[in-house]
Amino acid sequence: MPEVARGDDVAELIAAALAGEQLRDGDVVAIAHKVVSKAEGAVVRLAEIVASAHARELARALQRQGSAKDPRAVQVVLDESTQLLRAERGVLICRTRHGFVCANAGVDASNAPAAETLVLLPRDPDASARRIRARLRELTGSAPAVLISDSFGRPWRHGQVDVAIGLAGLQPLDDWRGRHDAAGLELAATWLALADAAAATAELARAKNSREPVVLLEGLERYVTSADGPGAAALLRPSSEDLFA
Amino acid sequence: MPEVARGDDVAELIAAALAGEQLRDGDVVAIAHKVVSKAEGAVVRLAEIVASAHARELARALQRQGSAKDPRAVQVVLDESTQLLRAERGVLICRTRHGFVCANAGVDASNAPAAETLVLLPRDPDASARRIRARLRELTGSAPAVLISDSFGRPWRHGQVDVAIGLAGLQPLDDWRGRHDAAGLELAATWLALADAAAATAELARAKNSREPVVLLEGLERYVTSADGPGAAALLRPSSEDLFA
Repeated sequence: MPEVARGDDVAELIAAALAGEQLRDGDVVAIAHKVVSKAEGAVVRLAEIVASAHARELARALQRQGSAKDPRAVQVVLDESTQLLRAERGVLICRTRHGFVCANAGVDASNAPAAETLVLLPRDPDASARRIRARLRELTGSAPAVLISDSFGRPWRHGQVDVAIGLAGLQPLDDWRGRHDAAGLELAATWLALADAAAATAELARAKNSREPVVLLEGLERYVTSADGPGAAALLRPSSEDLFA
Repeated sequence: MPEVARGDDVAELIAAALAGEQLRDGDVVAIAHKVVSKAEGAVVRLAEIVASAHARELARALQRQGSAKDPRAVQVVLDESTQLLRAERGVLICRTRHGFVCANAGVDASNAPAAETLVLLPRDPDASARRIRARLRELTGSAPAVLISDSFGRPWRHGQVDVAIGLAGLQPLDDWRGRHDAAGLELAATWLALADAAAATAELARAKNSREPVVLLEGLERYVTSADGPGAAALLRPSSEDLFA
């Protein structure tokens, strides 16, 4: 994929990158969110940001914890958040406007188009996935599912894994609760976040410093639907059910 | 795979299930932990358990939350735990003896050998992985990596994903921190939990009610090491660095 800029047609770039290979309806096109954000212009220049007193105070607190952060970058994180869950150990754990809980509200300087810019999450990643799916259908005649992912850290475990933040045409969860195992016992707590597993699978095929933001997953036909479905929003646990707010 | 019982040689069952197909050193053999637990006898009969006052009290509290639980099963969960993080909404979130944070300390009645039994996590899943790897080497002449997984729920997101709880010969994390992206910018927060991504990938290939506890992953040679390595223990964030205890 070439470097993506504001206004680029991501579906067209994907179709071009396929170089004649045929997409199929049961395929899943997994896209690292950053190319979607850049195409949609979800990018902020630090020079245009004025840090509030609260952002400056948080930046000072993070600095005291040994983690320097530009107060304007903190402001951008706060602007993307509805709730700040933790500001400890140099990390801001936020609930984003979309409802995702992640570090720095998903705001990221890596792979940004220029050193003084930050890439945000797409404004509505499920809508982005639906748009890209519709456009892929126009361009290729096929309607693969579209999965937009980001790498999230986890409490209790080191490292990050990719999760689904936007979906069109892929079932987000596979609910086995109430179904039975091979011995006839009820599978009590089996409720697979299969879109997140698919995001993690795509991540394994992608090197982070390469220009490979898109991975084609085959073999998941059983989870691909012709309707766009509920999207990745269905993966979010509401705050009211949250044990770790 | 046939039903696994105490004393069974899991590596031998895997080698037999391969039916002549050649394992390679760069392969990853991903195993759902339950077959390992059953082979190791990490199974408890409820009839042998006496619930303590604390377990009975917790069971009553869970019942008041609308989630009936046998006080003896609660006792088993407590026996497997070093810390009870939450007992709300009918769920016990525990830190296990190994350091994993998960629901019910990984104790599970689904796919258990009999209705009145519970399957525990293997006592030392990294040691189990090393043993199975050594035995596979004896039996097949190849030394694939071995990954033992369990399905864990997550805060903030619905559903479960498989994560690595035992590893031999697979790098647990891929550290890109300090490395640079395609534009030369530092990849600040990129530290991939690739063993967890591999566990999630295996999960996608496995149906929960089928007798398919083992999945062979190819294409991860770059992460497979001849040494057994640090194991899945390296994925655990110490309590002291934990923002959500």
